[in-house]
Amino acid sequence: MKSARLILPALLSLTAVTANAESLTPSHKENRCQKEMRERGYGMFIHFGMNTFIDKEWSEGVEPATTYNPTELDCDQWVRTARDAGFKYVLLVTKHHDGFCLWDSAVTDYDVASSGNTTDVVKAVSDACRKYGLEFGVYYSLWDRHEPTYQEEDFSGYLKFMDAQLTELLTNYGDVCEIWFDGGWDKKPEAWNIPHIYELVKSLQPNCAMGVNNSAYLPATDLSANIYGSADPDHMTGEYDVQFGYFPMDFRLKDPYIANWRDNKIYNVDGEDYYLPFEHTICLSKQWNWFQKDHPMETRDVDELEELFYRTTANNNTLVVNVPPDERGLMRQNEINTLLELRDRIGLNPKDKKFRHKSLNTPISMGQPSRATSVYSDEYGPEKAFDGGLYRRWASTEPACQLEVDLPAGKTFDRISIFEYMDEVVAPDGFSRRRTNRITDYTIDAYNNGEWETIYMSTEPMGDCKVINFAAPQRAERLRLNVRNATAPPSIYEFSVYSSEK
Amino acid sequence: MKSARLILPALLSLTAVTANAESLTPSHKENRCQKEMRERGYGMFIHFGMNTFIDKEWSEGVEPATTYNPTELDCDQWVRTARDAGFKYVLLVTKHHDGFCLWDSAVTDYDVASSGNTTDVVKAVSDACRKYGLEFGVYYSLWDRHEPTYQEEDFSGYLKFMDAQLTELLTNYGDVCEIWFDGGWDKKPEAWNIPHIYELVKSLQPNCAMGVNNSAYLPATDLSANIYGSADPDHMTGEYDVQFGYFPMDFRLKDPYIANWRDNKIYNVDGEDYYLPFEHTICLSKQWNWFQKDHPMETRDVDELEELFYRTTANNNTLVVNVPPDERGLMRQNEINTLLELRDRIGLNPKDKKFRHKSLNTPISMGQPSRATSVYSDEYGPEKAFDGGLYRRWASTEPACQLEVDLPAGKTFDRISIFEYMDEVVAPDGFSRRRTNRITDYTIDAYNNGEWETIYMSTEPMGDCKVINFAAPQRAERLRLNVRNATAPPSIYEFSVYSSEK
Repeated sequence: MKSARLILPALLSLTAVTANAESLTPSHKENRCQKEMRERGYGMFIHFGMNTFIDKEWSEGVEPATTYNPTELDCDQWVRTARDAGFKYVLLVTKHHDGFCLWDSAVTDYDVASSGNTTDVVKAVSDACRKYGLEFGVYYSLWDRHEPTYQEEDFSGYLKFMDAQLTELLTNYGDVCEIWFDGGWDKKPEAWNIPHIYELVKSLQPNCAMGVNNSAYLPATDLSANIYGSADPDHMTGEYDVQFGYFPMDFRLKDPYIANWRDNKIYNVDGEDYYLPFEHTICLSKQWNWFQKDHPMETRDVDELEELFYRTTANNNTLVVNVPPDERGLMRQNEINTLLELRDRIGLNPKDKKFRHKSLNTPISMGQPSRATSVYSDEYGPEKAFDGGLYRRWASTEPACQLEVDLPAGKTFDRISIFEYMDEVVAPDGFSRRRTNRITDYTIDAYNNGEWETIYMSTEPMGDCKVINFAAPQRAERLRLNVRNATAPPSIYEFSVYSSEK
Repeated sequence: MKSARLILPALLSLTAVTANAESLTPSHKENRCQKEMRERGYGMFIHFGMNTFIDKEWSEGVEPATTYNPTELDCDQWVRTARDAGFKYVLLVTKHHDGFCLWDSAVTDYDVASSGNTTDVVKAVSDACRKYGLEFGVYYSLWDRHEPTYQEEDFSGYLKFMDAQLTELLTNYGDVCEIWFDGGWDKKPEAWNIPHIYELVKSLQPNCAMGVNNSAYLPATDLSANIYGSADPDHMTGEYDVQFGYFPMDFRLKDPYIANWRDNKIYNVDGEDYYLPFEHTICLSKQWNWFQKDHPMETRDVDELEELFYRTTANNNTLVVNVPPDERGLMRQNEINTLLELRDRIGLNPKDKKFRHKSLNTPISMGQPSRATSVYSDEYGPEKAFDGGLYRRWASTEPACQLEVDLPAGKTFDRISIFEYMDEVVAPDGFSRRRTNRITDYTIDAYNNGEWETIYMSTEPMGDCKVINFAAPQRAERLRLNVRNATAPPSIYEFSVYSSEK
């Protein structure tokens, strides 16, 4: 509901208040806030709101509040599921781009209090988090397609509105471990006054880690030119060069990119180095929808989820997995089943108080000499499949082709993962997409003492992410992917060869 | 090599000798020979010989002996692989239908002694079995397409030839745990004088278990009419009615059929009940070739192998898996890798001295009331998918269709396996075949309290055998397979719902 006046915090005293907060300072190491973030490590992202009830990913803020109307809302089920699945925190979408608020906000009527179900979802979820021993974080969209002050020439009205909403979220729901800002791209970065927001957040929740989506990226440069590694904006489905954006923040965000294995989190800003971990966001759904649709959707394969888990929690980065409840207000059983299978596959224990980092050794294939029988162009050279990231890729001009890599001498290996480039079809919602792979018949061959020997073979479609585990350690001077048939010339984002040897 | 005279055993004293043997007598329980067979449980079947060197499954006995010419023969590798993979015995094809012998037989020149590699493979394998602590068994083809006496009007010459060869095999290679006769179908059953062969075997190897392929089957009758259950000749790819054949034997054989879950091994012969376990034979290769081809071939999926393992070792039956060496005389690495993965999946320990029976509880879906939205004909009713066997099947007339089963009240479940009917294309060798499934988009739905809920979903081809494991126990009053898309009207051999509850 909307009250007669805006209740604003005592902003003038911010500088004094934040003296107690763990704010960002130049460093090559994590600070306390970042350490706590690492110790949470694995979170459940929950998109729920207006878009759950219409067949759109991003509604325009014009749907009546009553369209939101979950009939069997059970936030306890959401958080219980998160706990059972081994997550250590929940990141709740409190307001998406459409401006609809999942709590009773004093500064707008476009909220649950005016909807078909007046439950304060922010309260219900934060209460359940305390009940189940999980931490609680909030997502908040800077962009607001409903709030009238957003459209005014003088943007200060909206900034005050935001201050009021953030103060509500960070005052009325207990400890908030993290705040995740989205939608900043609708304005120039400086419009948001990020330093002020950062100070406000820290004044209200000194231990809250703050990040802004699309922020804190260096452009994709030659990794070898930067001793700090830098985070190549690796991504499974697209390619962008993103300039450094918002500052300060405690961690980097660029949904849905995946950091390079070599990400070391050090960024130079105005001559000073800052340590900035990366929080990864992935969808449980195979079709990459963030809000649930009116029918059950297929989840990603557990192979792909497991491999992404290892990649995204490597190097002390963190991962949130989006698990959206449906229009009943319940998480769907097929998605819960996948989460529990993933938990068991990785070996997560819900009883662990802190996230126990589980990862694979750095791939022994990374940066090794490579070659291919066919190369689409220099930009798609074979080395791209071994560069540690999912951003660049090798591409062939022929359906039947071979990709080969030299392995370091004396090392065994016992796991291979392959991320293949996928053809995509956009779903009717204009956002979700269906991926189909190209490789349908292939072998993995090992070269030893002058001879190639097949160590794995399949005549089934490679799938979204192919993981091959070997029960006994394998040896090879060289290893190759031999594609015998494909529906189109194959392309490989990354071919990773892992060794569990210490 | 062929010696001037046949060296025949002292057949006249057979009856006296077999007094020490554990021969078959009427019983409802296993005898010592059958107990030892059960305690072996899981064996490696090795097809190697003339057909390894030509692109045929069944050569005609006309290839010169020198065509057999392995260049890197290493029988130690075969048996070491068997040991590593958790097998407890090896079953070696000593002579296939073409008559070529893998040992130096005194009664024929069509053997290794006249070939490109004179190694006595029977000796090398039996020696390696002793070295690695495995038991040793032999396969022998009754049918012989090379030996001239086989063609004579008076068949007694060939029977003597066989006696001589069996005496060699059962005298010169230490303990033989099992003898597996094949090819009997080329003559009428009585032509072979099975009682005589049985007596000969027991006289030379009192503890050797004997079986004859295509034997000891009752016709496919209504199971409920027989309190002993009977072994329905379940099979993944064909349908036959086979009459009871050879007798006596210690165990039943019908390659490559899979017994019904309810198989209880009791058969009535001439008014007496006999206990007859079943030894299953499956190929590691997906294309169902028994001899290796000149190129690596894909193995079955580990899901299918695991599910078949549980089905075939249920009810104290046994399983042999065929792993053929190639023309080098080596087992191929991709096949070894699959075997080791299967070992780990099942949890077999190569250090166990005896086979440790591992199985699943009887499917809770078996024999439960069922229905379908489409039925091809009475013969293909929905109940066929829940009859405990892979012989009969439900078939639809529509690509999109539903198959539904009522589950027993109060039971949870945590595993589902689905064997789908596959379309087959015969390979150029005229024997091997490639299977392709039909179902490409489906859900598994659970019915509780008046509502259906999806608990699993896939838009990938179902594959040869789909296994779905649930990390948490599921409940359902009814369960259904909801096929949303298929390349042809689906058909299901068996839909099994398992509970790990005791």
